Amino acid sequence: MNRIDGREFNELRPIKITRNFNKFAEGSVLIEMGNTKVICTASIEDKVPPFQKGTGKGWITSEYGMLPRATETRNPREVTKGRPSGRTMEIQRLIGRSLRSVVDLDVLGEKTIWIDCDVIQADGGTRTASITGSFIALADALNKLVEKGDIPKIPLKGFVAAVSVGIVEGNELLDLSFQEDSNALVDMNVVMTDKGEIVEIQGTGEGGPFTKQNLTDLLSLAEYGIEQIIKIQKEVLSDIVDKIGVDSVENNNSNPQSSQN
Amino acid sequence: MNRIDGREFNELRPIKITRNFNKFAEGSVLIEMGNTKVICTASIEDKVPPFQKGTGKGWITSEYGMLPRATETRNPREVTKGRPSGRTMEIQRLIGRSLRSVVDLDVLGEKTIWIDCDVIQADGGTRTASITGSFIALADALNKLVEKGDIPKIPLKGFVAAVSVGIVEGNELLDLSFQEDSNALVDMNVVMTDKGEIVEIQGTGEGGPFTKQNLTDLLSLAEYGIEQIIKIQKEVLSDIVDKIGVDSVENNNSNPQSSQN
Amino acid sequence: MNRIDGREFNELRPIKITRNFNKFAEGSVLIEMGNTKVICTASIEDKVPPFQKGTGKGWITSEYGMLPRATETRNPREVTKGRPSGRTMEIQRLIGRSLRSVVDLDVLGEKTIWIDCDVIQADGGTRTASITGSFIALADALNKLVEKGDIPKIPLKGFVAAVSVGIVEGNELLDLSFQEDSNALVDMNVVMTDKGEIVEIQGTGEGGPFTKQNLTDLLSLAEYGIEQIIKIQKEVLSDIVDKIGVDSVENNNSNPQSSQN
Amino acid sequence: MNRIDGREFNELRPIKITRNFNKFAEGSVLIEMGNTKVICTASIEDKVPPFQKGTGKGWITSEYGMLPRATETRNPREVTKGRPSGRTMEIQRLIGRSLRSVVDLDVLGEKTIWIDCDVIQADGGTRTASITGSFIALADALNKLVEKGDIPKIPLKGFVAAVSVGIVEGNELLDLSFQEDSNALVDMNVVMTDKGEIVEIQGTGEGGPFTKQNLTDLLSLAEYGIEQIIKIQKEVLSDIVDKIGVDSVENNNSNPQSSQN
Amino acid sequence: MNRIDGREFNELRPIKITRNFNKFAEGSVLIEMGNTKVICTASIEDKVPPFQKGTGKGWITSEYGMLPRATETRNPREVTKGRPSGRTMEIQRLIGRSLRSVVDLDVLGEKTIWIDCDVIQADGGTRTASITGSFIALADALNKLVEKGDIPKIPLKGFVAAVSVGIVEGNELLDLSFQEDSNALVDMNVVMTDKGEIVEIQGTGEGGPFTKQNLTDLLSLAEYGIEQIIKIQKEVLSDIVDKIGVDSVENNNSNPQSSQN
Amino acid sequence: MNRIDGREFNELRPIKITRNFNKFAEGSVLIEMGNTKVICTASIEDKVPPFQKGTGKGWITSEYGMLPRATETRNPREVTKGRPSGRTMEIQRLIGRSLRSVVDLDVLGEKTIWIDCDVIQADGGTRTASITGSFIALADALNKLVEKGDIPKIPLKGFVAAVSVGIVEGNELLDLSFQEDSNALVDMNVVMTDKGEIVEIQGTGEGGPFTKQNLTDLLSLAEYGIEQIIKIQKEVLSDIVDKIGVDSVENNNSNPQSSQN
Repeated sequence: MNRIDGREFNELRPIKITRNFNKFAEGSVLIEMGNTKVICTASIEDKVPPFQKGTGKGWITSEYGMLPRATETRNPREVTKGRPSGRTMEIQRLIGRSLRSVVDLDVLGEKTIWIDCDVIQADGGTRTASITGSFIALADALNKLVEKGDIPKIPLKGFVAAVSVGIVEGNELLDLSFQEDSNALVDMNVVMTDKGEIVEIQGTGEGGPFTKQNLTDLLSLAEYGIEQIIKIQKEVLSDIVDKIGVDSVENNNSNPQSSQN
Repeated sequence: MNRIDGREFNELRPIKITRNFNKFAEGSVLIEMGNTKVICTASIEDKVPPFQKGTGKGWITSEYGMLPRATETRNPREVTKGRPSGRTMEIQRLIGRSLRSVVDLDVLGEKTIWIDCDVIQADGGTRTASITGSFIALADALNKLVEKGDIPKIPLKGFVAAVSVGIVEGNELLDLSFQEDSNALVDMNVVMTDKGEIVEIQGTGEGGPFTKQNLTDLLSLAEYGIEQIIKIQKEVLSDIVDKIGVDSVENNNSNPQSSQN
Repeated sequence: MNRIDGREFNELRPIKITRNFNKFAEGSVLIEMGNTKVICTASIEDKVPPFQKGTGKGWITSEYGMLPRATETRNPREVTKGRPSGRTMEIQRLIGRSLRSVVDLDVLGEKTIWIDCDVIQADGGTRTASITGSFIALADALNKLVEKGDIPKIPLKGFVAAVSVGIVEGNELLDLSFQEDSNALVDMNVVMTDKGEIVEIQGTGEGGPFTKQNLTDLLSLAEYGIEQIIKIQKEVLSDIVDKIGVDSVENNNSNPQSSQN
Repeated sequence: MNRIDGREFNELRPIKITRNFNKFAEGSVLIEMGNTKVICTASIEDKVPPFQKGTGKGWITSEYGMLPRATETRNPREVTKGRPSGRTMEIQRLIGRSLRSVVDLDVLGEKTIWIDCDVIQADGGTRTASITGSFIALADALNKLVEKGDIPKIPLKGFVAAVSVGIVEGNELLDLSFQEDSNALVDMNVVMTDKGEIVEIQGTGEGGPFTKQNLTDLLSLAEYGIEQIIKIQKEVLSDIVDKIGVDSVENNNSNPQSSQN
Repeated sequence: MNRIDGREFNELRPIKITRNFNKFAEGSVLIEMGNTKVICTASIEDKVPPFQKGTGKGWITSEYGMLPRATETRNPREVTKGRPSGRTMEIQRLIGRSLRSVVDLDVLGEKTIWIDCDVIQADGGTRTASITGSFIALADALNKLVEKGDIPKIPLKGFVAAVSVGIVEGNELLDLSFQEDSNALVDMNVVMTDKGEIVEIQGTGEGGPFTKQNLTDLLSLAEYGIEQIIKIQKEVLSDIVDKIGVDSVENNNSNPQSSQN
Repeated sequence: MNRIDGREFNELRPIKITRNFNKFAEGSVLIEMGNTKVICTASIEDKVPPFQKGTGKGWITSEYGMLPRATETRNPREVTKGRPSGRTMEIQRLIGRSLRSVVDLDVLGEKTIWIDCDVIQADGGTRTASITGSFIALADALNKLVEKGDIPKIPLKGFVAAVSVGIVEGNELLDLSFQEDSNALVDMNVVMTDKGEIVEIQGTGEGGPFTKQNLTDLLSLAEYGIEQIIKIQKEVLSDIVDKIGVDSVENNNSNPQSSQN
């Protein structure tokens, strides 16, 4: 099978991460995966949402947006409709959950880190690029808190990154471009840590159901991609990589936002 | 381990499906899974959304709501805030995708089936109960179209049902109640067909990441549960069960709603 | 004249009230009047709206909703439009006013009882059924407060119930079904106490004006119906009926929410 | 009993109606009832709402607003909250129904008359003043249609006006001022025609229930007031009074907007 | 050139200001400029917006609205769309800025004056009439604070008024009516003080650009008009004119609301 | 006087314009003026707004947004509040007007060009940078229409650019940074053409009024800056500069969107 851009089935698009892309934010990157480009910023706020008040724990929350002409044809701004779309809400909830899974909220203390992911060009995989890029912005913001003496250490239990995989015309492919994604029978987003553990898996077979074997294969493909992505994350963060995932107090308490599902 | 309601780790809560619960809808059920109770209705509309117009294909769409006092403490109505929450939007998109995966939209023709899932009591697993219950309502509505001579056969390629699984205090459990779900380190919703194929899998480890072995185990547990649920669906639909999944023209075309992900 | 369902002009539809319909709410019923079915719940909140703060008095407020397929053809959810309709707001204000008229807010103290009325099937008379059913849910919630020792007695000065009457094809009828209501020249909703006093009367002659004699006749018909409905309420509440309307301190102070009319 | 402004219990406040108050509208008045002042305009539109299309019938609809400082303390604009309040929606529905009750929609044909009532000063009775004033604006707009030859005659079956009555400190009073209304145990709005027929009656006893005798007394008081108000309407419209209520084809068809109540 | 209403190129329309137009507001006027009519009220509130809290300074804010039938054809209410239009927001920001430019916010202290401008008839120049009229309402409200002893003197550094000028069919004109404005190549709104200083100038050449000479000419024309308008303001306020602009402590601090522009 | 970044009073910040910044848009630039960075895209749509339909003329419209962390402290997304702020609406209206002033809408024909300006970093002058940058994106989009043969020539009558000027601590300065702007007594935005004509001038003296001499001086300063900016625009567009402003049919018709001002 020939992929549209000549890639192998298990080949990532070129990744470029520009750290400190924004002059003001505590952490910020421009992440590019092929033609997909996302600005991720991390902003520190000295308070937590109501459900977290008085617990001594912090919070990580995320918002996601897309410039109107990030896509091939212009999309109306969501503010014009007066509300974020279902897709936007799903994505920002996913980004928040994924990052929280590697943060020790006790060490962070009662602060909120706002993660903003704004897509300035979209060619598939914007939500996974957002997770991968946001992790860098988050690490930088947390490191800034350490440097200011606000917290004792970087409260990250490890690295986290994400990638999409899918089945297109019978082929299991890594890191789908928009056109591939549009033709995919199965579309899966996987979020994993540097220890090869799963943080989130979302697989959808709207074009039709898929087998457990498909699931296993796609998961391996994703793992293979994420390993390479985390390697890039570590290079980008080479100056602070040794301070991440160290001595972390385990914090496996239940999620305070759990609600009916 | 003792589950709060005395169930085995792989035991479903009692399921009760009341067919034709609503006098007006083309299809309707009250589904009860333990203390979780959802009214599902299927309504036929003689047109399709803009993106489907002129394609000759139909559409299945879903909306989800919860009565304010479905839960232990009262939740404000979403209409009061002026918009559905992110959680609501995620769930209704999931229900719609799950049902569409077993419908032959070509055979349905340019009609929309609206699936409304309204939770009147919530004790965990409302989204999976919604999928399981909606399938019955959908089948009845489709059968009504056949009986009226509007379509040649029931355009269902098979059965679809869903269940939640998760890891609570180190135990892998089937069909979580709300309290179990609140304490789960890993929470997974699985949607499968009667052929044991996966339609959707969403696994989240916010309490911390999980291993591939966990994933495999939980998936088996879910499969075991869904087999039993589909057996119940078939009993409930005994009068039309033979007309479902017959001779279905395969329709594996790409999803018309694909957009940037 | 033959009514569509064979009833006499002054005959109510069969009434069925299922108490404690909901596992979580402090008070709850499913009320059925013929094919009209409404879930009413009463939820206690330990604070009052701003205008009532510091007065030592409580508050009763109500919200009303209809499932999308409660009606013959599906109605879009109000949350989709972002706001409750005028009709919804009128009805929930009416329910709140009607219940407050029999509650001694001084005895209740600074608590709010939220009354939620959700119509799961609609065949006319949903607002009057909501008032009748909510009264039961309210009484149960108030009794729970007594049992917990939070208030000294059930602060109900009496019973309250409601019914619709109208003129259809020249006939004055009790308890209109939806089809009768659609053809009514005059449509009137009456809310009365067990002492035969009027709490609210809303009569509309959009099909044309009506005479004072019509008003008198319709009011008598309503009174006749409400007497029977309150008798049923008393049977349903037989275990606490003796504690309602006893020794009630009169509280005829002016309404704190009065505003320009 | 001494009323605050020295009026007798059955005395109206001074009424002043300034016709053609607005340069642009097809019909317009400034109506003053004591310190309550409302601008009413009638605007003709050459189409009808969807539910009336193709029926050959017209429609009358109404909107109501209040300037922020119409009242003793400033009220926020409703546009700031993004939606009309429940009170506003109730009132504009009432005004529309009241006016439609005297219009022959068949003669009007497929046109909509928009009635806008904007309160510039509020001292009680704004909804009843709006009905009384709007009738004049409506008559003028309809007469303009006759003069242009668009319709054969003024499609008004009679006059309609409104007034409030209530029980304040045990006294039954006509035409309540804001302060009286704030202290009223019973508050009733009555809309009647020049033939003494009732178009709408809304009586509320939130301060406590009231007797049928109260209802009868208050209705008489309202009738006495409305007779005088309609006399003033007739003087104001002296040039076209003879063309109103003439030869009107009876139109007692059912209301096309009837929905579940 | 003949202007539509026979005015000279540099002639204002007749101005009429009715002071104390509203019974409740601390300051209020009806201002009429030809057929343009605006009700302006000033309301005092004993708190300031968050950004001004603790500064010891007050605030002046403005809201603007138009009755639906103020114009030749009816405009939908903004509340119906759920938000003020861009035009409305521009105008109310302009009015607020213009009035603040002559108020000593230190002397006012931590109070807010709400300025409401509601157009009841519109024939061009509604925003400039709003500024001119609001100044009177504001002065009266401030004077009331002095009379109550709440502030030591009227904190007005001078008078402020506004007028429109423009180029229509090659002619530079003062005080455009709606029809002139619709045909203007250049449209300019000028706000000035009684000292001939500029508070705000907004000139737009959407029909095509204009020269610096045009700008100079139009500004002179505006100055000529504003001198006359302020003369009228002084007559209207003759009883307190001597207390305005006296001994005012200069307050040239930076604007607390400055944000990115 | 020493400016914060060492500039002369009449010195622009460094300007960098990256053409074709976006892969999909018909025209796109990243414009940087010092630390202010804006992405401008131009998107072609094959229809016009209702008020322009059937006129044979096109339309240019603009939308403006700011990423949440474009500024020193994070600002909430406007979609969260459900509506664009007044500031946003003012700016996008200004951008649209400014660009339309140099476009021959007759030559464009019934097409709309959507201009999106999204600020990714904000240090003052975002609206003027948006105008300057958008002009390039617009020219490219229009040239693309010419190359496709859709229109006979680039319908631009000339160049347009913008800059801010102001008075800070008594000094008249060109191209204010955010900090300068925050301290400005007078703040003025000027939009001019390459012929030195004024398209829009907005001068505000909220810190206090200013003189006509100030206005003249500031305008000269702005003109001096805009000349240099347009020189840069011409360099950036060197390949098509000769096709702009050629032979342009004059189109001085009135603005179709004129409404009450």
